[in-house]
Amino acid sequence: MSTIILGIDPGTNILGFSIIEVEGNRVNLREVDVLRMKKAGTHYEKLKEIFDGLQSVIKKFHPHELAIESPFFGKNVQSMLKLGRAQGVAITVALSHNIPVFEYSPRKIKQSITGNGNASKEQVSAILSQLLRFDSKHLLLDATDALGVALCHHFQRGTATASKKSGGWKKFIAENPGRIRSL
Amino acid sequence: MSTIILGIDPGTNILGFSIIEVEGNRVNLREVDVLRMKKAGTHYEKLKEIFDGLQSVIKKFHPHELAIESPFFGKNVQSMLKLGRAQGVAITVALSHNIPVFEYSPRKIKQSITGNGNASKEQVSAILSQLLRFDSKHLLLDATDALGVALCHHFQRGTATASKKSGGWKKFIAENPGRIRSL
Repeated sequence: MSTIILGIDPGTNILGFSIIEVEGNRVNLREVDVLRMKKAGTHYEKLKEIFDGLQSVIKKFHPHELAIESPFFGKNVQSMLKLGRAQGVAITVALSHNIPVFEYSPRKIKQSITGNGNASKEQVSAILSQLLRFDSKHLLLDATDALGVALCHHFQRGTATASKKSGGWKKFIAENPGRIRSL
Repeated sequence: MSTIILGIDPGTNILGFSIIEVEGNRVNLREVDVLRMKKAGTHYEKLKEIFDGLQSVIKKFHPHELAIESPFFGKNVQSMLKLGRAQGVAITVALSHNIPVFEYSPRKIKQSITGNGNASKEQVSAILSQLLRFDSKHLLLDATDALGVALCHHFQRGTATASKKSGGWKKFIAENPGRIRSL
C-alpha cells in the first residue's frame, strides 16, 4: 500500500514536476523533471502544452494527491494573472481526475525540507539530493522545487497523522479512504 | 451552417456565460446565465464547480469558439492570482475540447457593442437586450457581460473576414476547417 504524490512548481514557460511514492516512512523518487513550453508559442499554446503534459504524467504515474507551490505575491498583476492561469490548468487537470490538491508557500516548503524558511533554492536542492539519493547536478531548480513541494506535503501528511495519538495510520486510512489506495 | 460562440466573464464566485449561434449576419441568443459557486466552498471546490459547470455547458451546446473577457489589471496581486486560476480552468475546459480561445478587454467589448469604450455595464446590457431582443431585467451583469464578449467576438470575426477582400467567408471556411461546422 503506497501513496503517490505529484509535486508541481508551476510556471508559464517552464513547469517543474516530480513524483514520489510513499510507503510508511519510506519515500521513493520516481520522477523529477520539467515541462518546457515552446518559446515561440502563444500564451494559450503554452497552457495547452501544460494541459497535455500533465495529462501524460497523470496517465503514467496515477498520483493520488497533488502538492503545488503557491507563489510569492510580490510580482506584478499581469504576471500574477498568467501564473494564476498556469496554476488553474494544473489544478483543473488534477480535479478532473479527482485528485485532491494541497498548496504550500515557498517559505513553508523550505522550512519543511531544510529547517530554515529562508534557505536558498540551491540549499533545498542539495538536501533533497542527499535525502533521496539522486544527482541534482543536471536538474533545473524548477524540477527540484517541484520535488520540494511533494516531499513537504509528505512531511505534513505524516505530522498530521502522527499528531492524532490514538489511531495513527489505521485511523488515517479509515478516515481517508480515498487518499490511500493499493497500487 | 452556423457557428456557436461561448462567451465567458470569469469570476471566482460568479461566472457569467452566454451562448450565441451565428449564421451569416444573423445572431441567435441561445443562453445567457451565470454559474454561482457555493459561498461556503473552498477555493478548490469553487474551481471544481467552474470545471463541472462549463463541462455541462459545452456538452449541451457544443460551442465552436470561446470568447473570454480579460480583466483589468488594477486589482491586487492576490485577487489577480485567484482570477487567473478561474480563467485557467475555463481555458483548460475549452482547450481539452479543442475549442480555440479568443480574449477581449472590457474596453474593446464596450467599444464593439456600444461604440463607446467607456460605456457603463448597464448601457452595454441595455443595447444587448435591444440587439438580441431579450429581457435583461432579471439578469446579473455578469451574465450580460458574458454575452457582450461573445457578440464582440462575432463582430471581430466578421471584421476580420470582411477585411480580407478576396475570399470572405468561403476563404475563411477553407482556411479554418475546424472552426466552421454544421450543426
